[in-house]
This record gives sequence, structure tokens and C-alpha cells, in this order.
Amino acid sequence: MPQTFFTPGPAALYPTFEKHLKSFVDRQLGSVSHRSQQYRDLHKFTVEQLRTLLSVPETHQILFLGSASEAWERILLNCVEHESFHLVNGSFSQKFRDYGDALRKYTHTFEKPMGEGFDAATISAPEYAELICTTHNETSSGVQMQVADIHKLKNKYPDQLLAVDMVSSAPYPALDYELVDTAFFSVQKAFGMPAGLGVWIVNEKCLAKAERLKKNDRLTIGAHHDLPTLWKFAQKHETPATPNVLAIYILGKIAEDFNRIGVNQMRKETEYKAGLLYNFVRKHSNFEAFVKEARWQSQTVVVANTKMDSPAVIGKLKEKGMVIGSGYGEFKASQVRIANFPATSVEQTESLVKAMEKLG
Amino acid sequence: MPQTFFTPGPAALYPTFEKHLKSFVDRQLGSVSHRSQQYRDLHKFTVEQLRTLLSVPETHQILFLGSASEAWERILLNCVEHESFHLVNGSFSQKFRDYGDALRKYTHTFEKPMGEGFDAATISAPEYAELICTTHNETSSGVQMQVADIHKLKNKYPDQLLAVDMVSSAPYPALDYELVDTAFFSVQKAFGMPAGLGVWIVNEKCLAKAERLKKNDRLTIGAHHDLPTLWKFAQKHETPATPNVLAIYILGKIAEDFNRIGVNQMRKETEYKAGLLYNFVRKHSNFEAFVKEARWQSQTVVVANTKMDSPAVIGKLKEKGMVIGSGYGEFKASQVRIANFPATSVEQTESLVKAMEKLG
Repeated sequence: MPQTFFTPGPAALYPTFEKHLKSFVDRQLGSVSHRSQQYRDLHKFTVEQLRTLLSVPETHQILFLGSASEAWERILLNCVEHESFHLVNGSFSQKFRDYGDALRKYTHTFEKPMGEGFDAATISAPEYAELICTTHNETSSGVQMQVADIHKLKNKYPDQLLAVDMVSSAPYPALDYELVDTAFFSVQKAFGMPAGLGVWIVNEKCLAKAERLKKNDRLTIGAHHDLPTLWKFAQKHETPATPNVLAIYILGKIAEDFNRIGVNQMRKETEYKAGLLYNFVRKHSNFEAFVKEARWQSQTVVVANTKMDSPAVIGKLKEKGMVIGSGYGEFKASQVRIANFPATSVEQTESLVKAMEKLG
Repeated sequence: MPQTFFTPGPAALYPTFEKHLKSFVDRQLGSVSHRSQQYRDLHKFTVEQLRTLLSVPETHQILFLGSASEAWERILLNCVEHESFHLVNGSFSQKFRDYGDALRKYTHTFEKPMGEGFDAATISAPEYAELICTTHNETSSGVQMQVADIHKLKNKYPDQLLAVDMVSSAPYPALDYELVDTAFFSVQKAFGMPAGLGVWIVNEKCLAKAERLKKNDRLTIGAHHDLPTLWKFAQKHETPATPNVLAIYILGKIAEDFNRIGVNQMRKETEYKAGLLYNFVRKHSNFEAFVKEARWQSQTVVVANTKMDSPAVIGKLKEKGMVIGSGYGEFKASQVRIANFPATSVEQTESLVKAMEKLG
């Protein structure tokens, strides 16, 4: 029996995925040279669809990496000479910071407990931090940062670069790229694809910084996927190394599907489905939202404390063909995580809520 | 009309590719958690099939990266503190060296012109080079290094680490991993898959070196995909970040198909088909082998000078449903490159030769 995945990544595949995969195979795109016009057209199409979907201006390039984790490394290597500043409130924002340490950057941290979020007003960025690293959606705890707070943060610190991890939320956050220097996501979350591709959106300010750092021979900005090289190839709709053509093709097709629906409509639907899920956990005595403050409650990954044993909850739902995620790390047995991505419909979300209501 | 790709990568897809892709979709493996037993079993299967196919001993781990280009970077970051030594005779061996420069290593180079190869006897490795970088098959020029010479080189310099780029030849070279510290390939060449996955084979000596370098806080071994972290996760059949599960699954299935045929049989067939191609270019007045010395003639990428305009050759074959590659870089218009990977059969190779004979 096919199962419906409400897991926070890898997640349910978008309903059109199989159709696009078939057309990739039928058109023999797996064998096409990545230095051919056919590839360049495909690459350009995907970038244009993403540009439309996310309202990315021409000041920003859209680049392809092996994963969003790779984006952490590339951003830190290319945009930070000495110091970065990290807002940490869960495992993934912490990994972004840990990458900074491993790359021998001096990392500043403003840390909050799991389940809590950040408001611009309470953030004070160190003077010498060259890059401020934010996480729009902390997948481990289900905490989001309000887009308005991300924008306020940049207005507060216009001279520092601002990075937004939107791995498990894009295309939901309506970021204004006038106020975001770089952002990134992976395709196995809200785009409903198998894992294996990271998307890196990055502006000319970051490029200028990387070009400056590249000239410093006491420092490396990396060799594979360094920003100036990626940018140069992107201008001709190519990548420096042979890319994951399959994923780039399908991403373009799914972004086109999203554009047909319209990103505003998709965002409204995301909020409506999130409402169904938060409403349920609020009402049901066996569950409660882990994130208390409504403004910090993620619209794309709903995390709930369970009074019942969470593996039992997960097991019972699985029998009904619905797969939800366990809590992250220390919360593995006491929480459930439910992804609310475009691939799961209103009807499927309603079915999940009904099945959870019947658990007892 | 479906075309037969004799291009050196992306290349023809292996005949079983579609079947395995379908089973990936049918089994909903695109949504499976990379922290689940189901994923660990899949990962373990692929590693075991590759271990069997390539006779990789337990002293070596088999790791997954975004591409083989990424392997260049990871090897240099993790295995070189100060100095590396590169045998350069084409664009890809040169890129390996360029990565060393970009990572601020001191790179030594022994360079030969395109079309020429290396014998162990004439190679003199600098005393302080920590790593010797060889390319088994230089995809740009169709030059191979004899496996026996690779082994002799290690015997000559047992205290230096030895790396083998076998991007466009694995599983053809019968490497003895007692004499190879690290090797790597990508899946869009002889494994007949779409691009998007690099495979990194690496031993405990490299790990020990990386662990030592990691303790040096004036140096970085990278943050994403650093060797100690990759190794730790590999021991539990996982990857640090969400991997390209689709490619890892299909690679395991194709490696299993290869093991059913037997690697020795596959190598013989490769040599037989290479013989057909070299025999043709030797006999035909419009073509000649670019690589003159038989011991350096690649068995997996045959490069020929053309007296006819090479774009015309490529165009005429394309009309007959056969796609061959152009020359690389400056040789684009004067050479053709013909991949000889397992995905193209003896019959298809014979058809290609016949079609080329008829060109005039």
C-alpha cells in the first residue's frame, strides 16, 4: 500500500514528480552533455522558474550545490574572512555555527533553547561579524523566524551580510531579496523531490566579498564550488562540474507547477493546513504544540509534545498508511514532527487529523 | 528516435537503469528517512556491491559525495597539510592540481603534453609531497596510466599517500587497494547513470592523517564532508547530510548487475570493444589514434584525430542515431572522443564502426 509521508524530509514526493521523471527518461536527458545548448536551455528554464516563484531579482544568482549542508560551508568560506554571527535555536542552526568553527572562523552565537525563536528587537549583532546567519525554519524544533523580523534585522545591520537558511520552508517565506544577501534550500522538503540537490541564492555583494577573499593567499574560499567560479558558469547557464541534471530538470518542472498555482495561493494553502494541525494539537488532550508563541510556530513543520508514547502514535498512523516524523534528538520519544509541505493536500491533512483524533 | 550515446559523460544509461528507477519509485524510496533502518540497509547493500566489484578491502571505506570534482577537494583538504604532487597530462589532472592551489597547498607538478602518459620509472616524487595524485584515465585526451605503473609508483614511494582519479574508467582498472590509499569516480561514466553522485574510496591512513590535521587549529579540513565525519557515519551505513538516495540505490543495483556478469568478464568485454575502435581508427585513412603509445591508449575513452571536419562526423553519425563526443578544448574541431563504457554493447560498437566506415 502506498503511504502518505508527512515526514520533514525526505518527505512526500510532489504529485507531478513521477510525470516529470518519466519525461526526463523519455527525452534521454540523463545522457545529455552538460556543455550542450540542450543542457543550457534546461538550466536556464529551472533558474527562471525559481526566480519567478521566489521573486529573486537580477542582483542575485541562483546556483546549484550537492545539498543545503554544502551551502552552509560555501557561504562561510566565501563570505566570511574572520567572524560570523549565528542565531542558534536547534540542531540545524547549530550545525551552521559548527561549520564556521570547523572552517576556523571566529563564530559568535546568540543561543535560545529548543522551541523558542528570535525577534529582531532582541538581537544584537557583534560589530565585527561580517555575516549574520539566520534560520527561517528550524526543522528540529518547528520554530520559524518571522519574515518581517528577518527584514528588520537587515535594516538594523545594513552593512553586514545576511544569510537565511530556508531549507525546510521555501517557497513559503516571502523574502524580500533587497534585504537578504543569501538564502538556500534543499529539494527534498517543500519541493517534494528526492534528496541530492541544494539551491543557493546569492547576491553581488557576496560575490564581491568572495572575489576579494580569493585574492588573499593566506586564505582559501574553497576549490570546488567557490562562488566566483559558480557565478561565472551560471552566467552561461552552466555549472563548473557535471551537475545533477535529473534533479535540476525536475526542480524546474515542479517550480513551473507551483507558478501555475501561484505562490500566494500556495502560501495560503500552507497556512490553512498548518491551521488544521495546530488547531488539532491545541484541542486534543494527548497533544500540545511544542512551540508556545504563535509567531514562532512553523507553518511547514509542526512539532507537538505527545502524552502518549510517540513511537506508538507513529506506529498506529503507519498502519493507516500515514507516516509522520519522530521528535529530533532528545525529543525523539516525546514529540512528533509533522511536515506540512505542498505535496500533502488539504484532504490528506484532514485525513491525518481524523486518524490522530481516533488514537484515543 | 532514441539515440545511442557514445559520449564520455554524461554517457549512455545502463540498460537496467530504467528498471531500477521504477523500483525506486514503486517502493517510495524517495521519501524514506536517511536515519531509518530501511535507508541503512540500502546504503550497506550499495557499499557491499561496490566492495565486491572493485575488491576493496575492509581497510578502506566507501563514501558518497556530490561529484568526483568534490572528491578532489576533500582529498586535498583531508590528506595534505602542506604539499601535494600532481601528474598532469590533460584538463582533469590539471583541475586536480588547480584545486590544490586554490586550497593554498604547495603543489608540485610533473607535466606532459596532451596525448602522452606516465610510466612509474620516469616519475620522481618530491620528498616533502604528502600525496601523489594520479589520473588513471584522463578523459580529455584518452590517455590511461597502466595499473601496474600506479602500483609501482606506490612501491617506489611507500610513505607517501597515493590517490587515483578513476572517474571515467572504474570499474575497469583492477587496482590493488593495498597499494592505493584513495581513489574516486563518478556515476555518469562507466556506471551508466545520470550525474549527481561521486564515490570516494579511502583508507585508514588517510583517515589518520585527516584526524591529525583536524587537531591543528591553524588549518581547516573543511566542514561539510570532512573525512573523519564521513567515516564515522559510514560505519553505521549513513551519511552526515541527507544523501542522494536515488543515485545510491541505483548504483547498488547496477553494481549488483555488474557482479552478476563478473568484473573480469566486463573488463574483457571493455578491452574487446576498445580493440574494435582502435583497430578501426588505425585502418581508416580519415582517422588516427591521438594517443600513439599502445600502453597509454585508454580502454574506456577512445580519442581520434579526424581528417574530416569533426563536427561533420558527429553530425552524420547523429543522423543515424549515434552520438559521439567532440574533442576537448583546443581539439574540439579536430578530434572525436568515443566512450567505451559497459552500457554500450559489442553489437552497438560494431554498428558504430560500420557507420564510421561509411562516412567516406
